[in-house]
Amino acid sequence: MPDDTVLYVCTTCRAADDAPDGPRGGARLLDALRAELDLRPDAALRIEPVECLSVCKRPCTVAVASSDRWTYVYGDLDAASSARTILDGLARYGATPDGIVPWRERPEAFRKGVIARIPPFPARAAE
Amino acid sequence: MPDDTVLYVCTTCRAADDAPDGPRGGARLLDALRAELDLRPDAALRIEPVECLSVCKRPCTVAVASSDRWTYVYGDLDAASSARTILDGLARYGATPDGIVPWRERPEAFRKGVIARIPPFPARAAE
Repeated sequence: MPDDTVLYVCTTCRAADDAPDGPRGGARLLDALRAELDLRPDAALRIEPVECLSVCKRPCTVAVASSDRWTYVYGDLDAASSARTILDGLARYGATPDGIVPWRERPEAFRKGVIARIPPFPARAAE
Repeated sequence: MPDDTVLYVCTTCRAADDAPDGPRGGARLLDALRAELDLRPDAALRIEPVECLSVCKRPCTVAVASSDRWTYVYGDLDAASSARTILDGLARYGATPDGIVPWRERPEAFRKGVIARIPPFPARAAE
């Protein structure tokens, strides 16, 4: 995985199973992702908390960006159970030159939860 | 508006009012945006057609990206009537340092049609 891949995690996403006075789903997902990343010392991935990715209707949400690769935004992610799936999916992303993982190799959570994708910036002439 | 702002336009979006054998809504929106941009010689904006932004349920869709600014994805855009609104909105975007236009100054089509936003890449330390 390249050094400059960044996983943005929305920390303000609310989840259906949030406790009334507990942390929000997005914050719980952030914690779970950091814990999972600690188990993968070889994963050159940076996790960045973000206050709102403007996908408020489909929590929890994350975005992954990397130079020369497409950016992807995913929603409908379960705060408690999806951290491993997300990092597995990003390992596949990081193994591609352009960020486009063949459809069948994508985790189901990514196939169903894709919100948008944006071309590498600046757009390459070939696209 | 800075030189490196890019407007990605999904050309594969289908619109409800597409003629069965005519061009798709996304392609019509692209043409309308190019025509509108021709009327604004001072707008330093590049328009790039893209095959699918993965927002297929909310056509027509565009994304705007610029170095040092947030990337925004918008959907639910009318192919026939929204070109001027989009370019007006992007002029406001380009007048900000970070791409974040105050809510009240955003076109209604952007307020209602926002699909996602992604931080500037690479994420700045202050965020």
